[in-house]
Amino acid sequence: MIINRKKSGIIIIGDEILSGKTQDTNSYFLTKNLSMYGIDVLEISIISDDEKQIINKVRSFAKKFDYVFTTGGIGPTHDDITSESVSKALKKKYIQNPLAKKLLEKHYPGKELTKPRLKMSFMPRGSKLILNPVSVAPGFVTENVHVLPGVPNILKPMFLEFLNQSFKKNILPKITISTILSEGVIAQYVEEIQNKNPGISIGSYPYFKSDQFGVSLVIKSNDKKKLSSVGKIIFNYLSDNGGDPKYF
Amino acid sequence: MIINRKKSGIIIIGDEILSGKTQDTNSYFLTKNLSMYGIDVLEISIISDDEKQIINKVRSFAKKFDYVFTTGGIGPTHDDITSESVSKALKKKYIQNPLAKKLLEKHYPGKELTKPRLKMSFMPRGSKLILNPVSVAPGFVTENVHVLPGVPNILKPMFLEFLNQSFKKNILPKITISTILSEGVIAQYVEEIQNKNPGISIGSYPYFKSDQFGVSLVIKSNDKKKLSSVGKIIFNYLSDNGGDPKYF
Repeated sequence: MIINRKKSGIIIIGDEILSGKTQDTNSYFLTKNLSMYGIDVLEISIISDDEKQIINKVRSFAKKFDYVFTTGGIGPTHDDITSESVSKALKKKYIQNPLAKKLLEKHYPGKELTKPRLKMSFMPRGSKLILNPVSVAPGFVTENVHVLPGVPNILKPMFLEFLNQSFKKNILPKITISTILSEGVIAQYVEEIQNKNPGISIGSYPYFKSDQFGVSLVIKSNDKKKLSSVGKIIFNYLSDNGGDPKYF
Repeated sequence: MIINRKKSGIIIIGDEILSGKTQDTNSYFLTKNLSMYGIDVLEISIISDDEKQIINKVRSFAKKFDYVFTTGGIGPTHDDITSESVSKALKKKYIQNPLAKKLLEKHYPGKELTKPRLKMSFMPRGSKLILNPVSVAPGFVTENVHVLPGVPNILKPMFLEFLNQSFKKNILPKITISTILSEGVIAQYVEEIQNKNPGISIGSYPYFKSDQFGVSLVIKSNDKKKLSSVGKIIFNYLSDNGGDPKYF
């Protein structure tokens, strides 16, 4: 049985990434985990905390993909404008979510619940919360857009919990074969095999490890039988041509 | 004197990144270094080795920004389609560059210069080469688009050398102040200061280090005098309010 996979886009929001201050690791984390739940990422966009940029990108991704995931810009400060911008993008009222307000009230006693902190309970009308086990202020889902925080330590447990509750595991079958032959030598053969088998995808990735180099071939398909037979053909070819192939 | 800065966009091309196989580190490396040469990155887009996606993105970025930088997809294999796609995006003929051909011939003696390897000398007509001190196959510049390899070990020395030859250092002046107060507490004050000083930009970034947390404020401006005076105002405010501020 071939299981249908979903298409998604990721929007990473944050000036600190575009300025080179911080290295984005969220897109890698999201991509890796989404892939295990049957959701392929077709495009990642990294933009600044700029209302116009966020509105345009959310609108275009929400139309293009089954799911959209954003990270960043939902904290308490003046440059945290993601929730309001997403509301505008989807033409929903930007209002206080009663459950989010309650969670924040419980977490921040009395005067500690400052106005900026209360801001974190505002989101598009009708949003469903994504709970935050680390620092309480929640993310949310509105239509097909999933809005998540940017701080990796908060994002990670939150997103894993959410994925686990919302989607079923669906790992795309793949085979990885490494060889000591270089890309320039095997490229023509790989291209022929790829053209003969349109139902599978073959990625070719050079590796450099201390004094050794070569290529990893990653072969993927929803069709396990086909995958295994094509894998064997490639393995045997590499073996016959001194490529010292290894399965991973 | 206020020096004009340029605007750029980065396009990272590679299925291996969208599938979660490889973490993209190139965009961080490019961003960090471009910033030191007066080039701000306004958008980063990560797309797959797909002709239509590459053409659309290169075309839109080339129109929107002063400079475009792409990484990935210029190797010898069947999925390396960046050079041909960039040619199509800019409506230039995809032809063999005589100098690139000469470099490859010198590097790969006789039969080692396979057809896939020769492919690496094809690019848009009239391109200027970006030399590759690691593995010879060059990148290139066509119009405002800079096409670079995806393998970090090759990209890094190549790009540093190119930047150094092509642009002048131009670091945007900035001040970083850290405080032990949390975002929720200082957000309102920071917003007021930001509104009063439209010529500077203030970024607010929470940090978590072992048992300590707080906020780093990154204040930037082309106007050094203004930057220093606003820095002092913020430092004194944090000091007066028990924020234990530190300059970085």
